[in-house]
Amino acid sequence: MTTPTEFQFTDYQPYDFANRRHIGPSPAEMNDMLKVIGYNSLDGLIDATLPPSIRQKAPLVWGAPMTEREALDKLRETANKNKVLVSLIGQGYYGTITPPVIQRNILENPAWYTAYTPYQPEISQGRLEALLNYQTMICDLTGLDVANASLLDEATAAAEGMAMAERVSKSKAKAFFVDADCHPQTIALIRTRAEPLGWSVIVGNPFTDLDPVDVFGAIFQYPGTHGHLHDFTGLIARLHQAGAISVVAADILALTLLKSPGEMGADIAVGSSQRFGVPVGYGGPHAAYMAVKDAIKRSMPGRLVGVSVDARGNRAYRLSLQTREQHIRREKATSNICTAQVLLAVMASMYTVFHGPDGIKAIAQQVHQKAVLMAKGLEKLGYKVEPESFFDTITVDVGHMQGLILRAAVAEGVNLRKVGETKIGMSLDERTRPATLEAVWRAFGGNFTIADFEPSYRLPKGLLRTTDYLTHPIFHMNRAESEMTRYIRRLSDRDLALDRAMIPLGSCTMKLNATAEMLPITWPEFSDIHPFVPADQALGYREMLDDLTEKLCAVTGYDAFSMQPNSGAQGEYAGLLTIRNYHIANGEGHRDVCLIPTSAHGTNPASAQMVGMKVVVVKVRENGDIDMEDFRAKAEEHAANLSCCMITYPSTHGVFEETVKEICDLVHKHGGQVYLDGANMNAMVGLSRPGDIGSDVSHLNLHKTFCIPHGGGGPGMGPIGVKAHLAPHLPGHPETDGRPGAVSAAAFGSASILPISWSYCLMMGGEGLTQATKVAILNANYIAARLKGAYDVLYKSKTGRVAHECIIDTRPLVDSAGVTVDDVAKRLIDCGFHAPTMSWPVAGTLMIEPTESETKAELDRFCEAMLAIREEARAIEEGRMDKANNPLKNAPHTVEDLVGEWDRPYSREQACFPPGAFRVDKYWSPVNRVDNVYGDRNLICTCPPVESYAEAAE
Amino acid sequence: MTTPTEFQFTDYQPYDFANRRHIGPSPAEMNDMLKVIGYNSLDGLIDATLPPSIRQKAPLVWGAPMTEREALDKLRETANKNKVLVSLIGQGYYGTITPPVIQRNILENPAWYTAYTPYQPEISQGRLEALLNYQTMICDLTGLDVANASLLDEATAAAEGMAMAERVSKSKAKAFFVDADCHPQTIALIRTRAEPLGWSVIVGNPFTDLDPVDVFGAIFQYPGTHGHLHDFTGLIARLHQAGAISVVAADILALTLLKSPGEMGADIAVGSSQRFGVPVGYGGPHAAYMAVKDAIKRSMPGRLVGVSVDARGNRAYRLSLQTREQHIRREKATSNICTAQVLLAVMASMYTVFHGPDGIKAIAQQVHQKAVLMAKGLEKLGYKVEPESFFDTITVDVGHMQGLILRAAVAEGVNLRKVGETKIGMSLDERTRPATLEAVWRAFGGNFTIADFEPSYRLPKGLLRTTDYLTHPIFHMNRAESEMTRYIRRLSDRDLALDRAMIPLGSCTMKLNATAEMLPITWPEFSDIHPFVPADQALGYREMLDDLTEKLCAVTGYDAFSMQPNSGAQGEYAGLLTIRNYHIANGEGHRDVCLIPTSAHGTNPASAQMVGMKVVVVKVRENGDIDMEDFRAKAEEHAANLSCCMITYPSTHGVFEETVKEICDLVHKHGGQVYLDGANMNAMVGLSRPGDIGSDVSHLNLHKTFCIPHGGGGPGMGPIGVKAHLAPHLPGHPETDGRPGAVSAAAFGSASILPISWSYCLMMGGEGLTQATKVAILNANYIAARLKGAYDVLYKSKTGRVAHECIIDTRPLVDSAGVTVDDVAKRLIDCGFHAPTMSWPVAGTLMIEPTESETKAELDRFCEAMLAIREEARAIEEGRMDKANNPLKNAPHTVEDLVGEWDRPYSREQACFPPGAFRVDKYWSPVNRVDNVYGDRNLICTCPPVESYAEAAE
Repeated sequence: MTTPTEFQFTDYQPYDFANRRHIGPSPAEMNDMLKVIGYNSLDGLIDATLPPSIRQKAPLVWGAPMTEREALDKLRETANKNKVLVSLIGQGYYGTITPPVIQRNILENPAWYTAYTPYQPEISQGRLEALLNYQTMICDLTGLDVANASLLDEATAAAEGMAMAERVSKSKAKAFFVDADCHPQTIALIRTRAEPLGWSVIVGNPFTDLDPVDVFGAIFQYPGTHGHLHDFTGLIARLHQAGAISVVAADILALTLLKSPGEMGADIAVGSSQRFGVPVGYGGPHAAYMAVKDAIKRSMPGRLVGVSVDARGNRAYRLSLQTREQHIRREKATSNICTAQVLLAVMASMYTVFHGPDGIKAIAQQVHQKAVLMAKGLEKLGYKVEPESFFDTITVDVGHMQGLILRAAVAEGVNLRKVGETKIGMSLDERTRPATLEAVWRAFGGNFTIADFEPSYRLPKGLLRTTDYLTHPIFHMNRAESEMTRYIRRLSDRDLALDRAMIPLGSCTMKLNATAEMLPITWPEFSDIHPFVPADQALGYREMLDDLTEKLCAVTGYDAFSMQPNSGAQGEYAGLLTIRNYHIANGEGHRDVCLIPTSAHGTNPASAQMVGMKVVVVKVRENGDIDMEDFRAKAEEHAANLSCCMITYPSTHGVFEETVKEICDLVHKHGGQVYLDGANMNAMVGLSRPGDIGSDVSHLNLHKTFCIPHGGGGPGMGPIGVKAHLAPHLPGHPETDGRPGAVSAAAFGSASILPISWSYCLMMGGEGLTQATKVAILNANYIAARLKGAYDVLYKSKTGRVAHECIIDTRPLVDSAGVTVDDVAKRLIDCGFHAPTMSWPVAGTLMIEPTESETKAELDRFCEAMLAIREEARAIEEGRMDKANNPLKNAPHTVEDLVGEWDRPYSREQACFPPGAFRVDKYWSPVNRVDNVYGDRNLICTCPPVESYAEAAE
Repeated sequence: MTTPTEFQFTDYQPYDFANRRHIGPSPAEMNDMLKVIGYNSLDGLIDATLPPSIRQKAPLVWGAPMTEREALDKLRETANKNKVLVSLIGQGYYGTITPPVIQRNILENPAWYTAYTPYQPEISQGRLEALLNYQTMICDLTGLDVANASLLDEATAAAEGMAMAERVSKSKAKAFFVDADCHPQTIALIRTRAEPLGWSVIVGNPFTDLDPVDVFGAIFQYPGTHGHLHDFTGLIARLHQAGAISVVAADILALTLLKSPGEMGADIAVGSSQRFGVPVGYGGPHAAYMAVKDAIKRSMPGRLVGVSVDARGNRAYRLSLQTREQHIRREKATSNICTAQVLLAVMASMYTVFHGPDGIKAIAQQVHQKAVLMAKGLEKLGYKVEPESFFDTITVDVGHMQGLILRAAVAEGVNLRKVGETKIGMSLDERTRPATLEAVWRAFGGNFTIADFEPSYRLPKGLLRTTDYLTHPIFHMNRAESEMTRYIRRLSDRDLALDRAMIPLGSCTMKLNATAEMLPITWPEFSDIHPFVPADQALGYREMLDDLTEKLCAVTGYDAFSMQPNSGAQGEYAGLLTIRNYHIANGEGHRDVCLIPTSAHGTNPASAQMVGMKVVVVKVRENGDIDMEDFRAKAEEHAANLSCCMITYPSTHGVFEETVKEICDLVHKHGGQVYLDGANMNAMVGLSRPGDIGSDVSHLNLHKTFCIPHGGGGPGMGPIGVKAHLAPHLPGHPETDGRPGAVSAAAFGSASILPISWSYCLMMGGEGLTQATKVAILNANYIAARLKGAYDVLYKSKTGRVAHECIIDTRPLVDSAGVTVDDVAKRLIDCGFHAPTMSWPVAGTLMIEPTESETKAELDRFCEAMLAIREEARAIEEGRMDKANNPLKNAPHTVEDLVGEWDRPYSREQACFPPGAFRVDKYWSPVNRVDNVYGDRNLICTCPPVESYAEAAE
């Protein structure tokens, strides 16, 4: 027999997710790193980094962290509390079948879901091609000229459509007409958006209630929320005569059979591409689309992928017309949208690539036939089915039997839609089976089988589609699963995502998206719940929402959360609306001044303008801190009308400013509220709480701090936390509390990805989250220390520390060597890295945020690459390398460079294998440096013509 | 209103899995292809290809094919009929936690699971590295010198250990001693293996019953099946004195805490690596290990990965010592093993890479502590726990209460092990939770909580491990999930699998492994069922096994199936045993001659020798057909002792021989049985049935014809079908019917991958399977037609047709241009292809099997590559290219070639972008041509030393 002391015990515990799986450096490595920085302990570093005044008093604790397996079991238990019924509720959310090849190889594949927004086009060619396919598909189906790479949800897209209409309309009117047949959540969001901007919203029947001269624009739903199909051609022509803009919210599947909005003359089309293979997921995430006429494309919000060329003249994709966007236009922007729903748009585009035009048309025909069969059964029972012709949605008036039938349907396992007090609606979809029709008939008192009826068609004759779509070869070449798998693989191989290297993006917190966190999101109990099911079918979601809310309150010091905003910018918007509502409720609706420091992220001023606030810019001192003198002066000057200030903490310069509490006090003194942008929460969790510092509201980027992957540029989640006094003013939703102010189509935003953040919290525990923050700060300070001497770190605290990110100055290289920040960023691709955030918040600099998930080995690899780049610049400075023809200017180097003639004054070896680059496993950029100007000058935003594909295939 | 006729209907149905997802060419493309071959219709081609005499009469039908979703629903319904209890049954199968990062990125990732066996080392460096890690881990833990890349299961490995002992032993004895403490299935397999070879098996207590002079070897279990731990050092020394060989079957997790077999002096160690992260899966697949002393490594069966160099002298991995293997040694081989369990070995190795030595040791300590706690609780209830010291397994005598307690445990959700008539055993594992211990105590009548006992240790003092293991850096660098993800990605990127290109391997049928088929295998209801659970907990498995059996009977014309063989070679062995048993039962046990044509796959003669048969080789005519004259003569000559013949149909030359029925008749006439090797069933399904032709038994390679992926070199499944008269003689199993003749450790082989084949059958339907066969034949004939003029197709039917594969002759190029088949194969890598089967069945040729899943585009890409290679050879023939320094000799070309000096008489462009190669998405071989001789001369089969890693990292 032996006793425990005879063993060499180790501290290491298997499945210690918090300490050894999520956090990169080992304890021993951390000690080495601390020595490099000059500290004896991690706590010593933290004490020197965070001003004592902002430290939180009590540690963050909520019980022991779970192992991956425990968390998965907990999630499974919670998931099982959701009831998966068949939902025919429709209203913008429809059953769809995600082809398994797409589920496994995109949604569940880190090469796709861990990628960042494609700002660096060279390392994003794969998803850019997929998005170009998406845009092509949207243009084809809507019959319009230019489509963006997706928006957050259909209701948001409709609101954006209204804003765009106002911008481009020649009418002087300040009203917007909304088809009463729009989905309720669409109407709600349009109201939310219009009200602070002073636009009135007229809801009615467009054929009777719309006078074009009264409005700057109008939106029609097609098919209507209750199934009606109208040709809006005449109405649109009348709008145009009055100088007004037409928006059509169209069902994407219906467009395969029906005349397109473009053919009706519409200026703008919006809608959801959810039903192209993306599960309903209790409301999201899904990709909404927007397509517009060519003439107004420069006013379109959102990301736009375009075709350009690289330095060799080869085709390359990139984001086009970025000057439209909020990070450039700031308070002059008309939208704060700074993301797309890339992962979901990619899925929807792949669904179309896989099915092709014949396939999606066949699916649409089948859906329609199911609806006709359903109608026939109901008619046989004596019900009058509305409308006479339809695509997938029908409504019947059942009088006082409504409740009885709805309950009977639920008992049969089917959710139908309650319409008013006497009607029932239903939308058929790709997943509907004969058994479901029969179940519904039983709920209505019938006892038929599907065989009792002949399939037929009830589409409106005049609206049948006669034009082609998806004629591009890409939609015709991938029918076999072998080919589809390979196409997906080829595209993903072109991109550099977190599954290959760190992505040290300042302010974007590209941390580990652990597999255990990702597994539950494709469980049907989370993914197959319609957002508008009765509450008792979503008890698992409820439990998760409640527990996650409790934990986020503990993290932030706030009292309440709204999970509605489905992006960070949406969170800002919702937070500012909440402040606005609060002032109005206090009879201080005149307060409309928002103080924002110059260093703020562009979404801040853009969001402020969206809620009708006047942005007053506050200066920032040379050291990156807010200029307190200026702040005091501006706050005082605008005291009477001060609504709020928006600050980021730690600052966008990566520093914990000591003055933050003073700022909060000042603003409160002058009657304002403090909005603290949560973009940098990864530097605070467990150490400091916005609510304690004095802030009143914040959004959290769950896709930054709480591990939701970036998906190549979306989805995100931006819930907002508020102090108790603001809680009554949080967004409402027509399908939950019926209160106004909805900001997302679904009440809980992109609910189906919340399991990621929740399991992260469960597996880390409060202590683990705190440790993560400390290590994030350690990793950033380690990089700053290692790069010392080569690059200046621009902003530091008094103690010489940075927070969780650091800005390094590459501007001196421009003067000394002609090397731009772009050159450094592209050269990093040769080294196998995604560049840090470029030129933000300061032009010509790089902002580096390593996060806690990166190991010392990876940080060292990055530092060696950065140091080697500095040495290359030095060689230019010292005349040892040519100023125009050098590895920095020619980066990224590609296989094409190697294969071709080599007349450069440095070797191929130097070109391709700088320090940092893997030898055998090198990542090769698929294109040389992309020409941005060319792409904007020669704008092409759909798949290039066949010949160019044929060339590429060679 | 509109009527259906107003629509342009298409034939295309979405989710038509059979016709548009699984099968590559579209109907229109098929017509084009038929024209190239010279036929008007697919049926015309088929009629010309298959002799009418062998065509099956009735079409294959079993109801409508299912869509992917319908099949997944059916599988879900079936899965739910399995009950997932906690199993503490042990006996070689233990609960384990698959780290999610490994599950998602390996087991569920086509880059890993669709890869082929690493015969072409250049395109297999990733999995070869993973296997080298596996071998290193096994060597370290067992304390032995050389480990192979895995065997089928522990019991098979033990039987192989016996066979190897017999081979290398200096003893003349013909008996093998088996520790009675071995797992019952191990003892059963050893008996099965020994009996036909005339070796007697002595089962007993090695400390009392073993006299070393009586035996050529002995096997001991460590820990014993009931938990006992003994030091075998003394026994092993005594065996060695007698010239006998020692085999130790050891639990791999126990070895982290206990003295290793190597330290005891063992010659051979075997065991399962299942509990390193591979789910129990109702019995498999798992990787078994075998490690041996250096002196006897050349007698070791199975795959062995070794380190060599490439043409540039850089490190490269490859399969070593292939001359040991059955495809070389044929009937002189001592094992028919021709595969490993690569995917599972890779998982187990990654489990260790992820946890490291500290991690697996901590897991082992925890498992042991759980066992001690369990024992303490039982002791407190008055039970005597055996043995006194143990690792994870304990046994208690409960007398007549056995049934009651076992049932009570099941009611508590726990399966315990029934041991004899009065005892109960239990093995604790990584998954065991406190609640399970408490549940077991309750079943025994106790009401304790875990907190009532102090953790302590009961390991035998003299057996504590004092030596290090897993000291290599690879086991210390991947603790963080970010790094682990990236390591897995880097390795997979080095390999070329079906997710990037077709793998046209003759006889290996690399068809689509559809995602929908793969999804269910990781559902807990399939993966978490212990193989020895009570039958009523595996009703889902039962249903699937029954239905799959029924379908396979319909396909083959057989009357019964055994699902036990877990590889094709194992199927051959089982089939021949069945024939042998049949003869014995008929009083004709003397029949021991097996006729095998020279063209047979090496496993055929190797399997025959394993069941003690004398192989008589039959000639093959120049056209590839069996020489009927010789066959008749041999059959007659050996009529008195004729046991069987083994034929492959269509032949290994890719032709449907017309004489097959005559062969069957001849053999039957002379009292023999016909074994038809099912390797080429992909040319027969739905068109022709072995059972109708006259064959008595066949194995089916479910990993070829029925879509189980190759996993990079395993798993496989080789069930055997037999005619009714052979059914009583199929393998038994100690845990099901108790009959002898078990060939696999688990009664249903690798049951957890059967959902793949079953869903394939469900989604294809009988008609779909038939169509697949036709298209497989079409695709092969299309390639033959397109290559006509450039290469001769060696074997054709009288009508000029090939079956589902074709052999092309590259031998003329040796004379004309000095170009070998190797050169062609390696050049194909430059073109982005895995080479076809090389030099088998005819040296200097390539056997091409495209399968039905490849599209016309992919076939054309391949043909263009092959034609371009022919043109390159022509350039050499005509003196336009150097004979020694040309793209064929220097293939594959790597990035290293491009980066370095270029002094070749052809351009980099020509080198790297031959026809077939993708431009942007080119696959780059990570190494130049691998030196095979060097690797065998300088054998290294574990991870190379640190310095060499450090170099590689640079």
